[in-house]
Amino acid sequence: MSKSRMEAFSDGVLAIIITIMVLEMKVPHGDQLADLRGLWPVFLSYVLSFMYVGIYWNNHHHLLQAVHRIDGKILLANLHLLFWLTLVPFTTGWMGENHFAALPTAIYGLDLLAAAIAYFILSHGLLKRHGQDSALAKALGSDFKGKISVVVYLIAIPLAFVHTAISCGLYLAIAVLWFFPDKRIERALG
Amino acid sequence: MSKSRMEAFSDGVLAIIITIMVLEMKVPHGDQLADLRGLWPVFLSYVLSFMYVGIYWNNHHHLLQAVHRIDGKILLANLHLLFWLTLVPFTTGWMGENHFAALPTAIYGLDLLAAAIAYFILSHGLLKRHGQDSALAKALGSDFKGKISVVVYLIAIPLAFVHTAISCGLYLAIAVLWFFPDKRIERALG
Amino acid sequence: MSKSRMEAFSDGVLAIIITIMVLEMKVPHGDQLADLRGLWPVFLSYVLSFMYVGIYWNNHHHLLQAVHRIDGKILLANLHLLFWLTLVPFTTGWMGENHFAALPTAIYGLDLLAAAIAYFILSHGLLKRHGQDSALAKALGSDFKGKISVVVYLIAIPLAFVHTAISCGLYLAIAVLWFFPDKRIERALG
Amino acid sequence: MSKSRMEAFSDGVLAIIITIMVLEMKVPHGDQLADLRGLWPVFLSYVLSFMYVGIYWNNHHHLLQAVHRIDGKILLANLHLLFWLTLVPFTTGWMGENHFAALPTAIYGLDLLAAAIAYFILSHGLLKRHGQDSALAKALGSDFKGKISVVVYLIAIPLAFVHTAISCGLYLAIAVLWFFPDKRIERALG
Repeated sequence: MSKSRMEAFSDGVLAIIITIMVLEMKVPHGDQLADLRGLWPVFLSYVLSFMYVGIYWNNHHHLLQAVHRIDGKILLANLHLLFWLTLVPFTTGWMGENHFAALPTAIYGLDLLAAAIAYFILSHGLLKRHGQDSALAKALGSDFKGKISVVVYLIAIPLAFVHTAISCGLYLAIAVLWFFPDKRIERALG
Repeated sequence: MSKSRMEAFSDGVLAIIITIMVLEMKVPHGDQLADLRGLWPVFLSYVLSFMYVGIYWNNHHHLLQAVHRIDGKILLANLHLLFWLTLVPFTTGWMGENHFAALPTAIYGLDLLAAAIAYFILSHGLLKRHGQDSALAKALGSDFKGKISVVVYLIAIPLAFVHTAISCGLYLAIAVLWFFPDKRIERALG
Repeated sequence: MSKSRMEAFSDGVLAIIITIMVLEMKVPHGDQLADLRGLWPVFLSYVLSFMYVGIYWNNHHHLLQAVHRIDGKILLANLHLLFWLTLVPFTTGWMGENHFAALPTAIYGLDLLAAAIAYFILSHGLLKRHGQDSALAKALGSDFKGKISVVVYLIAIPLAFVHTAISCGLYLAIAVLWFFPDKRIERALG
Repeated sequence: MSKSRMEAFSDGVLAIIITIMVLEMKVPHGDQLADLRGLWPVFLSYVLSFMYVGIYWNNHHHLLQAVHRIDGKILLANLHLLFWLTLVPFTTGWMGENHFAALPTAIYGLDLLAAAIAYFILSHGLLKRHGQDSALAKALGSDFKGKISVVVYLIAIPLAFVHTAISCGLYLAIAVLWFFPDKRIERALG
């Protein structure tokens, strides 16, 4: 089974998610700086989510590069990942409009956690089909970033009810961690 | 005539349908759990429709794999299928916002029925062009799932006026039935 | 210069146009048949525009099949066509929400006319680059459908101020005319 | 690393940006010419932004044609460019709805400036990887258009607070400058 349509469909969904998120930033009616200022939290949450969706696209791209075989279960695991990512515009909008209030910030983290788990299921499903000696296995290695992300989300979510700045700082830290291009996969493929 | 652009266009439309459906889940203004709770029916209808559009993409992908020849009529049959699927965000939103009231639930089923019939027309149009000995013919087999789906929709639609939980249970049952990767097509292609 | 990205971009834009048009069909708040009934004009205008955008995608697909060379001017001619087509969701929504009132119906026709002229410019730009003996030239032939469409739009637009049913009938007639798969191009390519 | 998915993702994002911008042109409730007239500034800002996004797609297409090697940093530079372009529907809508008031017009220019700088970073990142003797280096040449654009934006942004017609005239001038197909790249590739 060809992986190209799965890539094309995922590219499409991710491209649309990243673009419709901006629709949550409603055009203000006034034309003054004060009108823009009210949009800060929505803008910040947009930037954070843009980074995350960009990272997922980037990692998905890298992951699929090393893949030779896909089947029906992989297509489902991919749809499962896309499901949690399609909720990002909603969780982003809710967090932004409520100025990073506790519950919306926790729910945002829950969505990131669910997407991280879905990505883990997808990548390990692929790993099982390619074997421990495959380029994919070498590329994923110990999947340190994937594991640390899940741990950090699990810490950040309850902390939203202590202070949301801590949770947002942790979400941002994970985004920055991933933003450094993944040398392992590039090296293993190179 | 090349099938690749028909695939690309269909991927695009399905990716957009699946992503804009989430726009029907309007970001609530409050930041409490109670504000989210009001969204349950919209969320549930989103999950159901995400499964359906995902299934259609999945099956469309499988179907086209075994296809060698397309022509103008096939393009039209494909557009016809996409037409009914583009209405899914509307029927989903209407059903969700009205908490699975009778008429919206019936109309949702009508849309699923129309899409199922359109898929039948498309797959049988392809079958006619490829012959009874083709990989496609073997892959489709008796098309048991396709036929049972139509029958179940026909039963579920009037039952919405008895109790919508029955209809929704039947819609969900069909979604679950299709979610099991289609061994027949994979076997015939393998 | 490769035509594949121009195709991919056009497919993307057309897929999005066809899908976001449905967003103009706002989900009604009530759950009764009367609530749906108010949507008839919006639904009818959606069906008409779906046919038109589908036809443009179809014809664009056929046209590009026979094309070997594109350049910067062709990319611009293609963007020009897409510009008029991106206005279709707006003109469709305006016509539908105003129950096919005179001015919106005339403006809808103007948009169709502009798109038809843009398609003419694109196809004749391609023709000039491929010569009178090319497969493209044979495929386009006398471009009877293209010419008759422009004439009919020119008649239908002012008639919207007499009776909009006449204009809509003419728009529909042209859509039906194009919906018959274009034998000429298929034959010339075959 | 393959450039094809980066192209596909960028095509997707640009296609969606260009199409959802039209959603800012809200369908007016009345059916008279006066109702349309109120949309002039929104329409004009749409046309300007359509030209800009079209130009970016066009240039991106040309740029990537001459590219052989991409890596993680290039993917990030590309995401960075897309980030500023995803804000165009917002800045366009704000400028249009406020009838080209000073601040929105300046912010619109700031977004164009940021996108121009991001494009510069992307193209020079690619240049560094391909060397001074590459087809890409010859194609970019002195990058006169890129440099003059940045200078003009820097002049146009503060002038918005003197008279916005000057800024808009300068934005339009740059759009027209780019609209002439880039002979340099085509010649170097030819």
